[in-house]
Amino acid sequence: MSAVASAHAAAALIDGRFVGDVRALVRDGVIAELLTGTPAQPGDTRLGLIVPGFVNAHSHAFHRLLRGRTHGDGGDFWVWREQMYGAAQALTPESYGALAEHVFTEMRDAGYTAVGEFHYVHHQTSGAPYAGHAMELALADAAVAAGIRLVLLDTCYLRGGVGQELSERQRRFGDGDVHAWLERWHALRGAIMADPGRRALVTVGAAVHSVRAVAPADLAVVGRELPADVPLHVHLSEQAAENEACLDAYGMTPTALLAEHGLLRPSLAAVHATHLTDHDIALLGQSRASIVMCPTTEADLGDGIGPAPELRAAGATLAIGSDQHAVIDPLEEIARLELDQRLRMRRRGIFTPAQLWHAGSAGGARALGLRSGVDAQGLPAAPTEPGLRVGDPFDAVELDPDTARTRGADPLQLPLVARAGDVTATIVAGTLTRKDAA
Amino acid sequence: MSAVASAHAAAALIDGRFVGDVRALVRDGVIAELLTGTPAQPGDTRLGLIVPGFVNAHSHAFHRLLRGRTHGDGGDFWVWREQMYGAAQALTPESYGALAEHVFTEMRDAGYTAVGEFHYVHHQTSGAPYAGHAMELALADAAVAAGIRLVLLDTCYLRGGVGQELSERQRRFGDGDVHAWLERWHALRGAIMADPGRRALVTVGAAVHSVRAVAPADLAVVGRELPADVPLHVHLSEQAAENEACLDAYGMTPTALLAEHGLLRPSLAAVHATHLTDHDIALLGQSRASIVMCPTTEADLGDGIGPAPELRAAGATLAIGSDQHAVIDPLEEIARLELDQRLRMRRRGIFTPAQLWHAGSAGGARALGLRSGVDAQGLPAAPTEPGLRVGDPFDAVELDPDTARTRGADPLQLPLVARAGDVTATIVAGTLTRKDAA
Repeated sequence: MSAVASAHAAAALIDGRFVGDVRALVRDGVIAELLTGTPAQPGDTRLGLIVPGFVNAHSHAFHRLLRGRTHGDGGDFWVWREQMYGAAQALTPESYGALAEHVFTEMRDAGYTAVGEFHYVHHQTSGAPYAGHAMELALADAAVAAGIRLVLLDTCYLRGGVGQELSERQRRFGDGDVHAWLERWHALRGAIMADPGRRALVTVGAAVHSVRAVAPADLAVVGRELPADVPLHVHLSEQAAENEACLDAYGMTPTALLAEHGLLRPSLAAVHATHLTDHDIALLGQSRASIVMCPTTEADLGDGIGPAPELRAAGATLAIGSDQHAVIDPLEEIARLELDQRLRMRRRGIFTPAQLWHAGSAGGARALGLRSGVDAQGLPAAPTEPGLRVGDPFDAVELDPDTARTRGADPLQLPLVARAGDVTATIVAGTLTRKDAA
Repeated sequence: MSAVASAHAAAALIDGRFVGDVRALVRDGVIAELLTGTPAQPGDTRLGLIVPGFVNAHSHAFHRLLRGRTHGDGGDFWVWREQMYGAAQALTPESYGALAEHVFTEMRDAGYTAVGEFHYVHHQTSGAPYAGHAMELALADAAVAAGIRLVLLDTCYLRGGVGQELSERQRRFGDGDVHAWLERWHALRGAIMADPGRRALVTVGAAVHSVRAVAPADLAVVGRELPADVPLHVHLSEQAAENEACLDAYGMTPTALLAEHGLLRPSLAAVHATHLTDHDIALLGQSRASIVMCPTTEADLGDGIGPAPELRAAGATLAIGSDQHAVIDPLEEIARLELDQRLRMRRRGIFTPAQLWHAGSAGGARALGLRSGVDAQGLPAAPTEPGLRVGDPFDAVELDPDTARTRGADPLQLPLVARAGDVTATIVAGTLTRKDAA
C-alpha cells in the first residue's frame, strides 16, 4: 500500500465517459483537482485506465464460510438459512475479525473499495452482550486492516418471524427491544468516531433486518428516532413467503408496511426488492429510496429476478451487493444486473453501460451515505453520470483493458466484459494497492 | 507445452468424485492406466487437483470480434445479428486464421480442451469458393497452433430464411444446394484426414444451420446421406420468432420438423433449445440427442432460459457452449446453467454438482463425437458420472482449490465457485500447458 498525492491515469471515467490523460491531485484522501488532457508530472503515481471504486452495498461477511458448501443436496432459501445459522453460531469476535479481514481483502482485490456490512451477529450465543462492542469493533478493525471503506450497518433484529420469539440460534442477534438497540447504536457510533484510525475508513449506518424480524410498532420507533440522514437498510421481499406472511398478518405488502410506519425516505436502502407489486414500485420510487440488487445471491438462492428497470424508472437509485458472497466480483454482479433482466424481458440494452457503472459505484455510495451534500430536491446527492469527481474520496479501481478477456472492447462497455481478474489495482482514500504486490 | 508420459495428481475427478493421489499413464495422448492412492514416481509430471478438460460444444470464433462492442444502443437478437454479419463480411482465410488462433488460445487458457466450431463462413464474399478449403484449413491450423482439440462442424447454410434467398451478406455462407454441400463436406473431411499434423487434433463434424437456413427437403437429404455416426449440430428454437415462422410455413415446431425429416438421432446436438413445447422435449429426449446450452450467450442476447432439467429428465444429454464468446469461461457457463434454472424454478439444486461437471466435459465430448464406443443401447457412449477414464484422451484441467475465490469450497462443488482464473494448467492429448508459462 502507498499513499497517492497525485496520480496520472491514461484514461479515467468522468461524467459517464472515458477521458484520456487525467491527473488527480489528492488531499487527505479526497480528489482535490481533476485535470484532463494533461501529461504526467514528476512524482505522479502512474495508472492505466481507472474508474470509481465499486461499492458493495450489501454484505454479510460470515456467509463467505458457506461458499461451495451448500450445493450438495438441493433445498431452497429456507434450507440454506438453517445452514447459515449454523455458521453464525460458531463466530467469536476473534474468529469473526480474522474471517472478515480475509473477506474484506478478497473484496478489495476484486475492486470493491467500500462495503456496507449488514451486521446482526452482535452478542454472545446466550444473547448476553460482549463487553465494549467487541463484535462490531472486530469488523471495523478488519476493514482498517484490509484497507477497505466500511459502513457498519448495525441491524435491529428483534424477533424470529411475524409474531415469533427469536429462536435459540437467533438469540445472539437481538437486543431485547428497539430502545435498547437504539441506545447501543448511538454508543457504537460514538465508539467508532472516538478513534481516529477507525473513523478514517469506518462509519456507522443502520438497518432493520426485515418486516419479519422487526414488528410494525418498532419500525415506527426506528422511523421516528433514528436520524433521518443515517443510511437505513432493510431486506425487502426477497422471498414470496415473506410477502405472504406480511399480507396475512397486516393486510399489506412489506413495502406498504414500511411506508405506513414512516421508513420510506431517500436514506432508505431496500435490499433485493424481488417480489413487488406495481404499487410497491411506485412507493419506493416516489420516496427516492436506494435499491440494492444482489444478482449473484438472488440467482444462487433461487429468489427470482426483481423489477430493477421499473424501480429505476419510478425514481429509485440502483446499487449492487454481494450479500452472501457466493461470488465476490463487482463486475460479474453488474453484468448479471443487466443480463438477468435480458432473460426476463427478452431484449438487450435494459440499462446503458453508464447506468451499469453508476449502479456499481455512485449508486452504492449513495445507499451507504458516503457522499455528502444534497441535490436540487434536497435529496442525498447521487450524480446522474458515473465517474471520478472533485470532492469525492479518491476511491478508484484500475482495470486492464488489454487482457485476453477485455481486449477489443469499448472501455465504456467493460461492465459487460471485464471480471474481477482484470482489476490490477485499487485505491481507497488515496491509498494504492497493486494486486500483483499483494 | 510439454508432453506428459506419466502424471501424478494430488486429486482427480474419477467416477463423479475426487480421489487422492492419482497416477495417469499416458500413451499416444490417451489415458492408458489410472492408479489411485499411489505416490508419485520419478519422472511423473506433478499436478494438483485435476478434472476432465471442459468441452466447448458450440463456438462461432469470429463473434469474439463483437465482445464489448454491441451494448451501446439496446436492440435485440436480430439487431445484433446484423452487427455480426458485418463482422463476417470482413473475414479472409488469413485474418480468420489469426483471429481464431487467439480465440482458441483464450479458450484453452480458460480450461476448454476441445471446441466444436459451428462454421459457415466458407466462401468469398461473392459466394465463389476459395481454393483448397482455405477457410476451413485456416481454422484447423489455428486449433493446432493453439493446442486445442477441434471438431470442425462444417455447416449447411442454403437460404436466408423460410422461403428466402441468401442475402448479399449471407452469400459467402452458402454452397448453392445440399448436394454441393455434401460433396464439399466429404472432400474437406478427406483433406483433414490426409494430414497427420491436423488429424491428431482435428475431426470434421457437420451442422445444418437451422430450419430457417435449410429447407425441409434438404434436411431430409442430410438426414439420409450424412453418415449417422457423424455429429450433426443445429441451432434450435433460440428465438420465439423462429418457432412462429416455422409453424406458419410448415404447421409444426422446428423440433417436429427435424423429427419429420429424420434428423433426431443420438448423434444430433440441438443448440439452445430455448423455446420448446412439451412434445418437443419428449421428441428430443426419446431420440437421445445432445442439447448444447449456451447460458452466457442466451443471457446476452435475451433469448430466455431453456428447459434444461426437463430435457435431461426426458433422456437428452446436456453440454455447454460459449457460442458468441461474450464470455469464454467454462466455469461461468456451467454455473449459469444451474443458476439460471434456479431463477426460473425458484429453488436450489436443480442439477447435482456431478451433473454440472458432466455437462461441462463428458456431455460435450459426446455431442462432438469425441468418445468412441457405444453404450448398452447402442447409443454413443457418455458415462453417467464425470471423470477421467482409461481409454479417453488425456484432456484435463488443473484447478487451484486454494485461491481467494475457491478456498474453503468442497472441490466437488467447484462448478458453482471457481472461474477460468482458477485454471492453472490445461492438458490436451497429453500435452501440458501451464498458464503462468504462457
